[in-house]
Amino acid sequence: MTQKKIAVLGPGSWGTALSQVLNDNGHEVRIWGNVPEQITEINEKHTNTRYFSDVVLDDKITGYDNLSTALADVDAILFVVPTKVTRLVAKQVADVLDHKVVVMHASKGLEQGTHERISTILEEEIPADLRSEVVVVSGPSHAEETIVRDLTLITAASKNLEDAKYVQELFSNDYFRLYTNDDVIGVETAAALKNVIAVGAGALHGLGFGDNAKAAIITRGLAEITRLGVAMGANPMTYIGLSGVGDLIVTGTSVHSRNWRAGDALGRGEKLADIEANMGMVIEGVSTTKVAHELAEMLSVDMPIVDTIYNVIYQDADIRESIIKLMRREGRPENEYIIEIKGLN
Amino acid sequence: MTQKKIAVLGPGSWGTALSQVLNDNGHEVRIWGNVPEQITEINEKHTNTRYFSDVVLDDKITGYDNLSTALADVDAILFVVPTKVTRLVAKQVADVLDHKVVVMHASKGLEQGTHERISTILEEEIPADLRSEVVVVSGPSHAEETIVRDLTLITAASKNLEDAKYVQELFSNDYFRLYTNDDVIGVETAAALKNVIAVGAGALHGLGFGDNAKAAIITRGLAEITRLGVAMGANPMTYIGLSGVGDLIVTGTSVHSRNWRAGDALGRGEKLADIEANMGMVIEGVSTTKVAHELAEMLSVDMPIVDTIYNVIYQDADIRESIIKLMRREGRPENEYIIEIKGLN
Repeated sequence: MTQKKIAVLGPGSWGTALSQVLNDNGHEVRIWGNVPEQITEINEKHTNTRYFSDVVLDDKITGYDNLSTALADVDAILFVVPTKVTRLVAKQVADVLDHKVVVMHASKGLEQGTHERISTILEEEIPADLRSEVVVVSGPSHAEETIVRDLTLITAASKNLEDAKYVQELFSNDYFRLYTNDDVIGVETAAALKNVIAVGAGALHGLGFGDNAKAAIITRGLAEITRLGVAMGANPMTYIGLSGVGDLIVTGTSVHSRNWRAGDALGRGEKLADIEANMGMVIEGVSTTKVAHELAEMLSVDMPIVDTIYNVIYQDADIRESIIKLMRREGRPENEYIIEIKGLN
Repeated sequence: MTQKKIAVLGPGSWGTALSQVLNDNGHEVRIWGNVPEQITEINEKHTNTRYFSDVVLDDKITGYDNLSTALADVDAILFVVPTKVTRLVAKQVADVLDHKVVVMHASKGLEQGTHERISTILEEEIPADLRSEVVVVSGPSHAEETIVRDLTLITAASKNLEDAKYVQELFSNDYFRLYTNDDVIGVETAAALKNVIAVGAGALHGLGFGDNAKAAIITRGLAEITRLGVAMGANPMTYIGLSGVGDLIVTGTSVHSRNWRAGDALGRGEKLADIEANMGMVIEGVSTTKVAHELAEMLSVDMPIVDTIYNVIYQDADIRESIIKLMRREGRPENEYIIEIKGLN
């Protein structure tokens, strides 16, 4: 692939790691952010110490605080900003963009209020003649591992498989491998909802439960996010893939995950406000819990784990009592939800 | 449920933990084993220190070294012996059993040579008029956690759902929960084959790879064991359940798992013979790798992870080179295998 110019919107941990992958592949990478000190640090010290204290970036990676300049002549734009500002940034992009680009995103959430997926927001805000079909990049990927070039396998999903293949080629190298998928709904719902299950797995850990219980909540959690995703139009088999099971394993079993850590702290009795203040990073799972709870109600989907976490976070329910009640629900036929899935296909 | 008499065949770690669950539920539990010192220890000291150095069992749990005596008047028999001796023990049971019982098993493997599942062996060796449909008990369950009464959720599967429900009731209590399933092929293949993937995940760890890579091998491993299971007649959705994803998470991410530890040691360059000698317990994943490799060939199923581990264990292939080659395979459409699954249903 010839060298491309790519704007990465959002200098967070994942945006920085993906920028390095693209730079390693010979592309021109422009990281845009709205915190001037961070952009200056990237340009002058080639570091992003808020997220990676030990990493020095290639000096060809350039920071921009002006969006127009960052987008001039780019071939592709990668959105990797928090879910709650995605629409705002997309509007700004639409205002200044003057040519057609490949639009990608690597965010994991659902919009509060509208309950929309990220790609829908991007489709709504960026005129179709200025963009490809949106390509979602998602899968099991701690930024802390990708930034040190540890092997990572993820999914590139788009309604148009050709656009997904373009992105696959853009990112692929020896340590970063992409599989393609055309089930955007499946990949985006899996990405968003696994954060809720990770909060639950962390909470079990904080409450003192073991690996058996954590594997159980992850598995039953996978069943319920599959149910919701299928009700939204997803292919159930996507949830067995890298962006489903894969990401759930990484997020639900690892102290690297901020959602898991937030759940762990809740389990140990900390208050959410304190956890968010201490973390200093966005905990997508907290707001996604609210959106998922509302979606489950709207679509009449049974989501006991989501409901339990919602009640703990938003209704001040006792966490120990709620989780124990959840885990001791009457055991039922395990594939019961499959019948619902079959009914919907 | 009224008190039942249950013979547990095999005083290993899982047999001992399940015996305690049954005893906690008020049943009369008889553990049968063929190492007289171990049986004497269970009866006199109420310990099984080969597996649990700190645990004292209830003194109502009784050890037997005579199979006829152990089986007299029992309502149910639980097989939890290594795969390679299952047929032998089943023949012995058939020789002395003089009344109809519920037959259960909690072993995880496939028979060398015949490639048969455990329930098929039990069906072949124990006459139908002496038994229920075989019930498989399987799921994410470290014996080390169940023995201390940590919360565990697993699956009871049988061709006859009524038999599965009987077993569900036998075992269920506050800390041990069972879901029922009628897909015996799915549950047994998932249980056996996840051990092979656990060896692979351990090997990645031993070679120094991170969580992203381990989540990827577990996910791609799930895809290939699903492919094989479906070719054998399983319901693909079973692999999303407790005995599939759930058990794979516990086995593939935990140092408690002997299969994971064997892979880890292989990754660090140890030789299999030494690993087996040091472990002193059966590593089912090693022999299952051979059976799975042969089955994949017989059924023309693509199993790159199984083949890689087979080549390392049985063909002396270089582990680092083989694993890196495996993980860098060309990224393809992720749901490709689904097409095969659909084609088979």
